[in-house]
Amino acid sequence: MYALAIHGGAGDLPREPFTTAREAAYRRGLAQALAAGQRLLEHDGCALDAVQAAVTALEDDPLFNAGRGAVLSADGTAELDAAIMDGTDLRAGAVAQLRHIRNPVQLARAVLEDGSQVFLVGDGAESFARQAGLALVDNDYFITPDRRQQFEALKLRQTQANSGVSTPLLSLDEPPLGTVGAVARDGAGRLAAATSTGGIAGKRSGRVGDSPVIGAGTYADNHTCAVSTTGHGEWFLRTVQAYDISARLRYGGYSLANAVSEAIVQRLSGLGAAGGLIAVDRLGEIVTRHNTPIMFRASVREGEAAAVDIY
Amino acid sequence: MYALAIHGGAGDLPREPFTTAREAAYRRGLAQALAAGQRLLEHDGCALDAVQAAVTALEDDPLFNAGRGAVLSADGTAELDAAIMDGTDLRAGAVAQLRHIRNPVQLARAVLEDGSQVFLVGDGAESFARQAGLALVDNDYFITPDRRQQFEALKLRQTQANSGVSTPLLSLDEPPLGTVGAVARDGAGRLAAATSTGGIAGKRSGRVGDSPVIGAGTYADNHTCAVSTTGHGEWFLRTVQAYDISARLRYGGYSLANAVSEAIVQRLSGLGAAGGLIAVDRLGEIVTRHNTPIMFRASVREGEAAAVDIY
Repeated sequence: MYALAIHGGAGDLPREPFTTAREAAYRRGLAQALAAGQRLLEHDGCALDAVQAAVTALEDDPLFNAGRGAVLSADGTAELDAAIMDGTDLRAGAVAQLRHIRNPVQLARAVLEDGSQVFLVGDGAESFARQAGLALVDNDYFITPDRRQQFEALKLRQTQANSGVSTPLLSLDEPPLGTVGAVARDGAGRLAAATSTGGIAGKRSGRVGDSPVIGAGTYADNHTCAVSTTGHGEWFLRTVQAYDISARLRYGGYSLANAVSEAIVQRLSGLGAAGGLIAVDRLGEIVTRHNTPIMFRASVREGEAAAVDIY
Repeated sequence: MYALAIHGGAGDLPREPFTTAREAAYRRGLAQALAAGQRLLEHDGCALDAVQAAVTALEDDPLFNAGRGAVLSADGTAELDAAIMDGTDLRAGAVAQLRHIRNPVQLARAVLEDGSQVFLVGDGAESFARQAGLALVDNDYFITPDRRQQFEALKLRQTQANSGVSTPLLSLDEPPLGTVGAVARDGAGRLAAATSTGGIAGKRSGRVGDSPVIGAGTYADNHTCAVSTTGHGEWFLRTVQAYDISARLRYGGYSLANAVSEAIVQRLSGLGAAGGLIAVDRLGEIVTRHNTPIMFRASVREGEAAAVDIY
């Protein structure tokens, strides 16, 4: 029995009026990305291909903060991170600090398949991408009018607050919405997870969050579960959140629901951290949880109807 | 009761003749770094300062593959990574892909103290270092004649093997010896861990190993233990090794000795991965373990004699 869940970020409601039309657009984007992964699972595709297809669709959708539509860093460029992991053999690919890779999750997959390294960053990652034949694009490709406007507004607030002192914009009051991710179990019992993000709007150039870090934002192991997180990345790094869920199952005998509940509702909330995660276990049970007002998400299990949720 | 352990890498014996004089130099370097950390713990210093002092000493020692004496990447430069973590409040600082920071662990500490981010890489990390007033140096500072010679030998073998095709040198047959790290428990029961490395000789530029990744190469939590790993970094990333030890204690009720033994002797060896780790738990018990021929290491506990070991 296959199972697939995706997310498009957890956080506060977007600042702009969240009209019915806008909500419908988010729901449509989630449904399309879910369908892209589900199509593969329906035809005996593997979990790894399914999470990659779903995340690629979310990267291409400018509504989400990954690939096209990524937020801008303090220096006004998009800097992208992604990771993907195969729970069958613990192969993993992680990439960060990209400026020219159209689909970061596809570069993460290429790193996974190559196998010589797990984690590549910056120019070295992009030079590997060229060798692997991936599509490179100008940084402008990622930047939508909405994100440019968000960036200008951030800069203006920063200038007003600091009388022009140049520091990172780093606005944690800005909703960190829009990181995307997917977790899947395929019909053969294989698990996989993938996550992709533009990070936090106004972030210091070079800042890497939890998304591309195996164990923090992304983890999969057929014996336990697959996890993708979203939210206040610094806290997910400190708590090694994705692997923490897997370890609760492996060493503590937790059910997936109890593991996620304790991790998100008790521990993270106790630390003052905001965010959420999606997870699927080896039997295909899906659990999603967030301690923020909203988390864009969708899921489907073989023979059941797909569900798209926001609140 | 304070406890401090350090390592200078796990792997095969160095390729060059391991003379008595050379072995004595390694032992002296380890003893000096241990003493640098111990001095602080003797005078009620905190675990965080102690691991930073020990790792700084190892970075400054050209025998070890961290700071001065780091191995060279495929493009002939030193690219440095480090992390440090405070087990009291889970504050952490991680830096990667540095080319001009004299003591990477000190930049990691500055990131930890700043607190706005956990993980900074590349030019953005070095720009943060300038703002924090850290010493920047030419890349040549790191490169010793021994490392230059190792690099030329690697290039020659690569050219002979590939008839000049340009690929990363990436030689896993090259002993990955020399990553450095420290773990400490201070008299007040606080735990901390730090790790610093130049990575693998001939690595693809941009490759980040486990050392700077919180949860993989470095982790500390007062409730469980502090861990620093060394060895085949790609496998430590996939197994989230440092946090795995902590999770075995937290969720599985393992003793530190059993946790480390199962992780290194059974799991990692089973996966075909080579390396080792040092760990200290909340009661000050020190455990070091490696599945490689050697691991440079030293440790001391309050009121006991210091020990330096290689085999």
